[in-house]
Amino acid sequence: MKRDTRQEILNAARTLFNQYGYNGVSLRDIAEAVGISKGNLTYHFSKKEDIIESLLDSEKGSLPPQAPGTIRELDTMFINMQKTVVSHSYFFLHHTQLGQISENIFQRQRRRYKRILPHLNNAFATLRDNGFFRPELFEGEYERLIDMLYMSIIYWAPFSRLQQATAHGMNFRRHIWGALFHLLTEKGRRELDEILAECNIRGANTSLS
Amino acid sequence: MKRDTRQEILNAARTLFNQYGYNGVSLRDIAEAVGISKGNLTYHFSKKEDIIESLLDSEKGSLPPQAPGTIRELDTMFINMQKTVVSHSYFFLHHTQLGQISENIFQRQRRRYKRILPHLNNAFATLRDNGFFRPELFEGEYERLIDMLYMSIIYWAPFSRLQQATAHGMNFRRHIWGALFHLLTEKGRRELDEILAECNIRGANTSLS
Repeated sequence: MKRDTRQEILNAARTLFNQYGYNGVSLRDIAEAVGISKGNLTYHFSKKEDIIESLLDSEKGSLPPQAPGTIRELDTMFINMQKTVVSHSYFFLHHTQLGQISENIFQRQRRRYKRILPHLNNAFATLRDNGFFRPELFEGEYERLIDMLYMSIIYWAPFSRLQQATAHGMNFRRHIWGALFHLLTEKGRRELDEILAECNIRGANTSLS
Repeated sequence: MKRDTRQEILNAARTLFNQYGYNGVSLRDIAEAVGISKGNLTYHFSKKEDIIESLLDSEKGSLPPQAPGTIRELDTMFINMQKTVVSHSYFFLHHTQLGQISENIFQRQRRRYKRILPHLNNAFATLRDNGFFRPELFEGEYERLIDMLYMSIIYWAPFSRLQQATAHGMNFRRHIWGALFHLLTEKGRRELDEILAECNIRGANTSLS
């Protein structure tokens, strides 16, 4: 069977970037991991940015087809987002830097943000209509919270490293739900309690306080 | 008068890093801006990280001596924090990357975070005791919000670049107060309204909605 060198390079690069960070991995390191010469590697990719762009090209979108309409569905969306952040830490840990060294990557980051915003706006409006979220206290409140939420998602990887300095934990769902708790109606809080209780049975420390 | 080459290098580097980003500026660029040879520059600083570390060494702390106890004082603290983010964009735009390439810088970032947390915790508790903030809905709620707030501060520079993709604005104070508005009591909201009204007279678009 013919070797798919290009794909092997992408796989090795992703593993190395996730482990050592974008700045800690050279083209030579990647060539060594694949077991090819650096010349052979640069035949496929001349720069590290090109590898990142190809990795991103190969990603499927991770957004659910429909905006979440219950607390459980929103929670599932957060869990999936966190999984994405962990499995793509090469991308999120270097979000700012990658956007600076490649205009192409920056435009992707913008498109991603623009695509997720209406999704979260719909989710918040639906949760309000379904009686899980209280109405806005002023026009644009949901939008502000969604922006904070989005910052929390894309910068979670570097922030959680920083946070290890402190005594309090760094569970992503606690962080998110702690900041959204004030939006929940009595009905919303009951549903969140149920979800968190299930998690505690499975041993995860996700209770809010 | 003897030239202070070291200080000239630091000044030029800071200007260039703020303008073109950490990755867009080489040691050669800095030497050219100062009008010295690259050899002369590397006599003072052998790596770009060394320049950043020296820049950070020369910073004075920007925290107020006392934790803010009124909405106006907290607002002033946010304004000053935003000014710091703008004038030190070389640091904040590259927050994650700098923490990765230099353990020394990463430890500083951690110390900064650990120093600001108790300050904000005190502020929130005082604002509650003074009747501006409602009590916590659960133990640890303030802590979660303060973490979100801190993320908003350190990652504001790259996030606001990303945000230019969208129709809604990107005023830092609107962002912050929009996300904290639900904490305000009637008394707190009156004080915030007064502050924002003054801003509007001066033409700044800081109303929340």
